[in-house]
Amino acid sequence: MIASLIPEFPWSFLFIQDLIGTVVFAISGAIAARQHRMDIFGMFVLAFVTGVGGGTLRDVMIGSTPVFWMKQPIYVLMISVAVVIVALAKNAIDKAYWKTGLLIFDAIGLGVFTVIGVQKGLDFGLHPLISIALGGVTGCFGGLIRDILRNEVPIILQREVYVTASLVGGIIFILFREAGFESNWIDVATVSTVIAIRMLTIRFNLHLPKI
Amino acid sequence: MIASLIPEFPWSFLFIQDLIGTVVFAISGAIAARQHRMDIFGMFVLAFVTGVGGGTLRDVMIGSTPVFWMKQPIYVLMISVAVVIVALAKNAIDKAYWKTGLLIFDAIGLGVFTVIGVQKGLDFGLHPLISIALGGVTGCFGGLIRDILRNEVPIILQREVYVTASLVGGIIFILFREAGFESNWIDVATVSTVIAIRMLTIRFNLHLPKI
Amino acid sequence: MIASLIPEFPWSFLFIQDLIGTVVFAISGAIAARQHRMDIFGMFVLAFVTGVGGGTLRDVMIGSTPVFWMKQPIYVLMISVAVVIVALAKNAIDKAYWKTGLLIFDAIGLGVFTVIGVQKGLDFGLHPLISIALGGVTGCFGGLIRDILRNEVPIILQREVYVTASLVGGIIFILFREAGFESNWIDVATVSTVIAIRMLTIRFNLHLPKI
Repeated sequence: MIASLIPEFPWSFLFIQDLIGTVVFAISGAIAARQHRMDIFGMFVLAFVTGVGGGTLRDVMIGSTPVFWMKQPIYVLMISVAVVIVALAKNAIDKAYWKTGLLIFDAIGLGVFTVIGVQKGLDFGLHPLISIALGGVTGCFGGLIRDILRNEVPIILQREVYVTASLVGGIIFILFREAGFESNWIDVATVSTVIAIRMLTIRFNLHLPKI
Repeated sequence: MIASLIPEFPWSFLFIQDLIGTVVFAISGAIAARQHRMDIFGMFVLAFVTGVGGGTLRDVMIGSTPVFWMKQPIYVLMISVAVVIVALAKNAIDKAYWKTGLLIFDAIGLGVFTVIGVQKGLDFGLHPLISIALGGVTGCFGGLIRDILRNEVPIILQREVYVTASLVGGIIFILFREAGFESNWIDVATVSTVIAIRMLTIRFNLHLPKI
Repeated sequence: MIASLIPEFPWSFLFIQDLIGTVVFAISGAIAARQHRMDIFGMFVLAFVTGVGGGTLRDVMIGSTPVFWMKQPIYVLMISVAVVIVALAKNAIDKAYWKTGLLIFDAIGLGVFTVIGVQKGLDFGLHPLISIALGGVTGCFGGLIRDILRNEVPIILQREVYVTASLVGGIIFILFREAGFESNWIDVATVSTVIAIRMLTIRFNLHLPKI
């Protein structure tokens, strides 16, 4: 039973990215729970839904069931480890660090999940336009539930360049693919684009025009 | 790639209704976003989830995947056009008009989605009673998410005759079908019933008894 | 059409438990609606989503569609009956009784749904660890939506021993199964454990450590 917890090597690049995305989003959920002074299980719940929320909605909508985290126990294990690490982190760490940490982990998760969403959409024979939308859903939904659960106005509905970052990443993915680039380079370009847009718009306080 | 954006003619009556329902709900979502002074992408997100939310839940629950809007890019295109139109509409338009517009588009969407939900349920071999419930879920869920996202008490939980309108429409659908009416007439009767109930109860301020 | 409303006998133990869980959760939803002074249909909606929410998410995620309550009209019927009973209950009943009632029905539902979630996970060939998580999702999700809809901080994110109760129940289930106990005994042990943990921690005001 223990042996089956870890999938056999070699792991695919897509699987590794999925794992990274799940863990960084889980960490962002755990940090958010810590900010709200929840207990360890409230923390686990928030980390769990943030980590697997986007991918679960993606798999359910395209009909890839049982959904991804159910096929490999390693996702739940990694989320649990992430929660314990955040829970044990020193109280001495400054509030500002937590806030910055949440934004960075959130940006990485958004980038990685955008890639996986677009890729899975194409694998299921969906139109590139729809695959880009699926990348956006995969990237944004986990954080959306996280914010609804802790009763905050979702980050994606505030005047942040968030969904846009994911959609631009999705467009980059499709363009690089049409141009014939190798798979791993497409992924790196997409993730970098998403993270760069998030970081730059936050740093320089850029917003889309209000209506 | 561009050619495949528009499905081939002739379009089925059910598909046309689905498109109408998606667009009018998307407009109601876009108007709601405008009322909250969101940016263009917050507007798109709210329009999108309102437009496809009910049908997505319907398809996911009966196992019709990939869900409807993923098979035809035209849904996402139409929602985008609707958002742009609402975004560009003159600021001069009175607040009261927006509010009335939201109610009317919402009523049309509720009627059309009730029809499609009941029809799809019967197509999947579900009991008529369950198909009526499925019509209600399809009709109500998009607006429910719209209201949760903008942090308002969902319209369907307020003392409005909303779910009831959809359920009565579903009953009309089943009765007309049992009576042997032709498919298009059943649809027209159902949609008219739902819209009439919504408009009349709002106009004359009618409510179900409180407990 | 009427005959098909009730499934043929004999009913399986799992089906009976599913029915019990759905009804008790529906009652907890109806009581919550009553506390918020909703009308009869708002009450029905809240009872419905609380009753079928957890099982619907479970079935959708493992790909068991159409979801459970769509295959048997008896679920919707029983929920309707439960709502009418709660709606007609005397106003004279003390508020404290409603509150206690909500907690007890909620605990029974949590126990029964934990069993069904774990069982269905194993039936679908999932890892025991994932099946325990699925039991938790099935048990907790209905109450989660109930609380989101009525705009309260979800009970499972408060400092209550809630998710923990379900997870411990799931562990008991797996351990008793490994030990070779008969199916019905496993179910009874699991449900009793969950209810006992909920009741004792509420009675003696026990909590998990805050971070």
